[in-house]
Amino acid sequence: MDFVTSLRAAWARNDSLLCVGLDPDPAKFPAHLQGRADAILEFCRAIVDATADLVCAFKPQIAHFAANRAEDQLEALIDHIHRRHPGIPVILDAKRGDIGSTAEQYAREAFERFRADALTVNPYMGFDSVAPYLAYGDKGVIVLCRTSNPGGSDLQFLETGGRRLYQHVAELVATQWNRGGQCALVVGATFPAELAEVRRLVGDMPLLVPGIGAQGGDIEATVKAGRTAQGTGLMINSSRAVLYAGRGEDYAAAARAAARETRDAINRFR
Amino acid sequence: MDFVTSLRAAWARNDSLLCVGLDPDPAKFPAHLQGRADAILEFCRAIVDATADLVCAFKPQIAHFAANRAEDQLEALIDHIHRRHPGIPVILDAKRGDIGSTAEQYAREAFERFRADALTVNPYMGFDSVAPYLAYGDKGVIVLCRTSNPGGSDLQFLETGGRRLYQHVAELVATQWNRGGQCALVVGATFPAELAEVRRLVGDMPLLVPGIGAQGGDIEATVKAGRTAQGTGLMINSSRAVLYAGRGEDYAAAARAAARETRDAINRFR
Repeated sequence: MDFVTSLRAAWARNDSLLCVGLDPDPAKFPAHLQGRADAILEFCRAIVDATADLVCAFKPQIAHFAANRAEDQLEALIDHIHRRHPGIPVILDAKRGDIGSTAEQYAREAFERFRADALTVNPYMGFDSVAPYLAYGDKGVIVLCRTSNPGGSDLQFLETGGRRLYQHVAELVATQWNRGGQCALVVGATFPAELAEVRRLVGDMPLLVPGIGAQGGDIEATVKAGRTAQGTGLMINSSRAVLYAGRGEDYAAAARAAARETRDAINRFR
Repeated sequence: MDFVTSLRAAWARNDSLLCVGLDPDPAKFPAHLQGRADAILEFCRAIVDATADLVCAFKPQIAHFAANRAEDQLEALIDHIHRRHPGIPVILDAKRGDIGSTAEQYAREAFERFRADALTVNPYMGFDSVAPYLAYGDKGVIVLCRTSNPGGSDLQFLETGGRRLYQHVAELVATQWNRGGQCALVVGATFPAELAEVRRLVGDMPLLVPGIGAQGGDIEATVKAGRTAQGTGLMINSSRAVLYAGRGEDYAAAARAAARETRDAINRFR
């Protein structure tokens, strides 16, 4: 099944717009996992199993694996999600951006090695830097548009031709890059007015929204600004607030409680 | 020694502005390496040893390793360069771009795990997405500015405040991000007039210039547009034209001949 179809099915089946971000930080793991060679996999697998019926997607962030020489654990984790929780799409958050011949290698890494269902990419190098991912017709390509970090405005808020750069990116993706219906956009939760503007520009295209929880975005404002007429269209990401909700041996149960609370808080405003 | 100092020393010692890009593609390897588990490391190590006295830097491109599950070979390759060819800086070409807490993980990956001397990064997410790399005071941070691929113009050539986006990035890096003198820019060889414009904007800042050789940029125009008053300031990258100059067992000798020819062609116009 292709990414967008899987996502829609997961929205409905789990009644959830919540995406759980898997950003493992071994220093924050509970004591009983410390020092284990497979601690990252164990930690993430328990989080996944505890929350899979509450989410619309999982989003492993690759730097947190690569900095710890844990690419093999990332492979095993995604394999586990596919086998144990079929139908929950996996977004590899890697924000790739390079020329075509190199993008082909990144696409092989994301879609063949790691078997992700979707990948985040950076638009700065333009269409041909994104085309090799789109060549995998069943995969999702999630383009950075308006990011939630303080420096997000340095470039994205520049005015060009009467609009902001992020608006230009949203239109470019919606009108030109999305011919196969595979695209989504990253739009931070910290700017609800801009989220609403992007929603206006892109119709029902899915939006991946980081920035609630640890980054401080407001759930009500985010949902009201970003939902579609059907009350979906969003993958609202929470990473640290779910992963590190508990620090003891019961961390997975604490993560489940945090995920359920977040999902339900989102649903109150759909 | 910090990156920019190493680079200057290598420019002088090897009388070279040539950077050899290490983009291993096992399908193009000579027959005697095919099927070997360490083929990527063997191939790249031979190229490095054959060209180290002709270059100012080596630039491994990480996707070509990651797509082949060869991160361990990349570690071993960079370690080899540091031990056998001390003073030749290693640029990890990964074009990273993410929020601060994630950028810290990418910085650990590039500078602690892989022990690169410099990293390529993407400016789309702004200053705080670049700051964690700058926190490593002896490392180089090479920011995408104007890229040589066809879609490079999609965003980079947009006009904002009376100038193009790539000009804005060049100024931003030169005037604000480069306080520690660690920054460089990526500017493609296919647009000599724009390379000259960036040189005008950034003074003596080093420029990494892909796009000669396989990508078709002209050496004379590139050097004349991009050199500093001292006849340096450039890391002119060639990957495929060097790596795959020969396809037989003598591929390293063929690579050396191609590298020498390119270095000398560059030097004719300095």
